[in-house]
Amino acid sequence: MKHARIRFEGAVHQVLVETHHAVRLQDGRLLAEDQVEWLPPATGSMFALGLNYADHAAELAFKPPTEPLAFIKSPGTYTGHNQTTWRPDNVAYMHYECELVAVIGKPARNVKREDALDYLAGYTVCNDYAIRDYLENYYRPNLRVKNRDATTPVGPWIVDVSDVPDPSNLKLRTWINGELRQEGSTRDMIFDIPYLIEYLSSFMTLQPGDMIATGTPEGLADVVPGDEVIVEVEGVGRLVNRIVSETEFFSVRKEA
Amino acid sequence: MKHARIRFEGAVHQVLVETHHAVRLQDGRLLAEDQVEWLPPATGSMFALGLNYADHAAELAFKPPTEPLAFIKSPGTYTGHNQTTWRPDNVAYMHYECELVAVIGKPARNVKREDALDYLAGYTVCNDYAIRDYLENYYRPNLRVKNRDATTPVGPWIVDVSDVPDPSNLKLRTWINGELRQEGSTRDMIFDIPYLIEYLSSFMTLQPGDMIATGTPEGLADVVPGDEVIVEVEGVGRLVNRIVSETEFFSVRKEA
Repeated sequence: MKHARIRFEGAVHQVLVETHHAVRLQDGRLLAEDQVEWLPPATGSMFALGLNYADHAAELAFKPPTEPLAFIKSPGTYTGHNQTTWRPDNVAYMHYECELVAVIGKPARNVKREDALDYLAGYTVCNDYAIRDYLENYYRPNLRVKNRDATTPVGPWIVDVSDVPDPSNLKLRTWINGELRQEGSTRDMIFDIPYLIEYLSSFMTLQPGDMIATGTPEGLADVVPGDEVIVEVEGVGRLVNRIVSETEFFSVRKEA
Repeated sequence: MKHARIRFEGAVHQVLVETHHAVRLQDGRLLAEDQVEWLPPATGSMFALGLNYADHAAELAFKPPTEPLAFIKSPGTYTGHNQTTWRPDNVAYMHYECELVAVIGKPARNVKREDALDYLAGYTVCNDYAIRDYLENYYRPNLRVKNRDATTPVGPWIVDVSDVPDPSNLKLRTWINGELRQEGSTRDMIFDIPYLIEYLSSFMTLQPGDMIATGTPEGLADVVPGDEVIVEVEGVGRLVNRIVSETEFFSVRKEA
């Protein structure tokens, strides 16, 4: 099953997603994808991985890490499916990053890798945009790279663990304006989801609603206002986003 | 005025703090400091600064940064005044860090330094413990250094901005078991609070309840189970914490 959070007629709803992206409200009404505002399906902390695909590390001219390079994103960076994201004025590189996200379902501390999937609510997708201009080095990124408002689309929904038989063999793909620009597979992750849960839970408690964004494969390119960017993880979801200018984004936001 | 969050008889209360740390419930009852459970006074994201005092950077053998070295802590790391914190088994260095914390009061985006204090709810204190073993370098720290459960005491309260006439000239002091071990002044900050608000709000919106932990001066030392650690920022607050072992901390927590 697919579980989403949407806003409709001013209220936030937890909904199930049916065929063709229609969502079912608890009162039984069925709403089409474009009738609702899609919200991030989880709102906990996001633990994001840097350089978790060897090919991507090579693309950035860094050696692969020997321990997960995890950093935290704050909730103000999240946005939902079918929303807009902004490209800051006066930057040279804004790159998409298609990622599989593991969503925590119950408190996880000192979890072993063989039990790790029991602690998941399911999987979702994110586009962990990066403003490369401010990337200083191999290590955890400057907040100017990774923590701007609404620059991390997440969703559209959470898919149950049982609906994704092999999370370590899923295609990741990104299209800009319909053209395929990034293609990889979760089998090329350096640290897989069970390992990441074991690692993070060895020193901290992961909480329900926390997310682990597992990194992106090679194939990055710049996006500009007007671009439609779609990131897809096979069997999990297809997340649509549109880039606007800084001025357009914040003028609309102020009115909202 | 001093504003605290406490738990009493199972319920969470927003309270005012009166003389001698007594807190006043909304029903008029006055409770002594040790009758209540002190909670972190804010629960937003914490943006913490690395190496924001030149003397501390020198102590760690790093050059001072030319741009704020900001990183994010997740809320699971916060704990309140008079609570316990744990020292992980098998680590060599657990250091206290006495810090002045600026608490955001209203959404702040593109704020200029001359207007910055208008966006604050007030000030509090934190002890941003670090497990030095895992500090890799100059840059944003490994989560194993800075993001363990309940290793960031915050509080006891938020003091109004108007009650702290000069936040850039406050003494910071840390005592272990009654012995003064760290002493510094906020005048030695490299990036002061108005600058940090201008910097962070230039690329992201700071939200009410978010905190900026402004870094610590030199004078670090190791703490071990049994130690009572008190950090104080002059005119803001005095925050008490006791260190226990990993086993003791999590056995009590499981029962709770």
